[in-house]
Amino acid sequence: MSLLVVGSIALDSVQTPYGTGKDILGGSAIHFAFSASTFCNVRLVGLIGKDFPVEYKDRISEKDIDTSGMQEVDGKTFRWDGRYKGRMNEAETINVELNVLAEFEPCIPDNFKDSEYVFLANYSPDLQMAVLKNLNNPKFVLADTMNLWIKESRKPLMKLLKKVDVLILNDGESNMLTDEINTIKAGKMIQNMGPKFVIIKKGEHGSILFSPNEIFVLPAYPTDKVVDPTGAGDSFAGGVMGFVARANEVNQKNLRKALMYGTVMASFNIEGFGVNRINQTTHDEAKNRLNNFTGMITP
Amino acid sequence: MSLLVVGSIALDSVQTPYGTGKDILGGSAIHFAFSASTFCNVRLVGLIGKDFPVEYKDRISEKDIDTSGMQEVDGKTFRWDGRYKGRMNEAETINVELNVLAEFEPCIPDNFKDSEYVFLANYSPDLQMAVLKNLNNPKFVLADTMNLWIKESRKPLMKLLKKVDVLILNDGESNMLTDEINTIKAGKMIQNMGPKFVIIKKGEHGSILFSPNEIFVLPAYPTDKVVDPTGAGDSFAGGVMGFVARANEVNQKNLRKALMYGTVMASFNIEGFGVNRINQTTHDEAKNRLNNFTGMITP
Repeated sequence: MSLLVVGSIALDSVQTPYGTGKDILGGSAIHFAFSASTFCNVRLVGLIGKDFPVEYKDRISEKDIDTSGMQEVDGKTFRWDGRYKGRMNEAETINVELNVLAEFEPCIPDNFKDSEYVFLANYSPDLQMAVLKNLNNPKFVLADTMNLWIKESRKPLMKLLKKVDVLILNDGESNMLTDEINTIKAGKMIQNMGPKFVIIKKGEHGSILFSPNEIFVLPAYPTDKVVDPTGAGDSFAGGVMGFVARANEVNQKNLRKALMYGTVMASFNIEGFGVNRINQTTHDEAKNRLNNFTGMITP
Repeated sequence: MSLLVVGSIALDSVQTPYGTGKDILGGSAIHFAFSASTFCNVRLVGLIGKDFPVEYKDRISEKDIDTSGMQEVDGKTFRWDGRYKGRMNEAETINVELNVLAEFEPCIPDNFKDSEYVFLANYSPDLQMAVLKNLNNPKFVLADTMNLWIKESRKPLMKLLKKVDVLILNDGESNMLTDEINTIKAGKMIQNMGPKFVIIKKGEHGSILFSPNEIFVLPAYPTDKVVDPTGAGDSFAGGVMGFVARANEVNQKNLRKALMYGTVMASFNIEGFGVNRINQTTHDEAKNRLNNFTGMITP
């Protein structure tokens, strides 16, 4: 069993009603890897610049994360600067510096090519496809996407959808991709575009898993502690894929539990700035919260 | 076992993306009663005017509804004229004519005074309290409220909260009542205002039940058929109270199932204009949908 993530590594600057973080460790691949490594070893592929702090490298290395695909190149690390207000449902981007990501061509190390479980974090569908072509024969591929690609790269995205097992996206993106405002209809329409499974995330309102013959609807973990929502979606994906990879079997029961672990890991993620909280989350802690959560949703 | 509802009976005019209804049978007490009568007999108290169509009286009488508290008075029936757009999450009120409701003083018939289960539909807290004072010794009282009373009648509302077992309200109203944007915190704060239980409705995103020592989180029934959301909240309350009254025992297990029946009855309600769809819903149909729903939410 082996789990690979390809995505961004970032230095985030975040403002929320609960405080401010400057140049904190972030990026889709980081939130995913910190979350998934609670369940199993994670192979990380992503670019950093010469300015990437040594202490962050250390923090990553301390986790069960294989960093042999973390490439340091000339230039500065990708930076995102954003702000959340009120209920913190939506991030307002203040500034983005692509820096080394501008010419991101992920190089998959040879020893990663046999990866069975793969998360293609949000990136251009052309690049996501390039990653897939570099892998031998993955067993289960989850891809994320966003508004930008749905609008600007629809054709490559549609091609990618034929090659992945699961597409994960939020409800607004599912509406945009299908031109359908009803989320249940939208999910089914996306299944018809290729992926056997679709996961629609609704933030504080939970998520929906569309499988070939059934739907699983899950609320979010009810929490009164939201400090910084950045990376919640990627931590969610990390919980999903971490659990599936650890179980090493894709079936309905495991996928439902995977969604629940995704929910639980996202709930840890938002309790601290960046990866501060999820960094400390142990497997036992995740299991305990899963048990609590199960008690809150079981009929 | 006896179930009483006191609330409005209306002639609604509704526009949705799926069509238009003019002077259709509506009102909080009607949606509640049609829903709850799927489970048990419902005692209905509400005012109608001289213009109330005979065919609507017949429609009500055909259900398991005791209409001896439906009082016809001089004047016109309460009218609401509204519109839904897009995702239909919020009603836009075009016009309201209080008519006979302007001087609504519900008279509880003597044979209703021993009612054990009571739904105080959305109305002024002063009037809701007056109803309670007219009852002998109800076992379980559920009260609804809205923005208007939270803003304009806070003092009587706070008094009422000490006298009811459950307050049901939507998430926006819970934020307004507590001045707290986190729904989980808000629910707990409302429990501290008096009611042992609080139900927060989140429309298409489900509902949350706050009990003394636990929380139950429930998604909405995933449906791609939404024709007219009018009365969904009251049908929800009807499913909750109908099931609890039928079970005739208030405990955690029953309340969770009651919330699920509320969800199921709301999902029927929105499939047709006014009460057209819920009018046809049988107890077996509700049970079948509950079973389907259970399959969609069980871990």
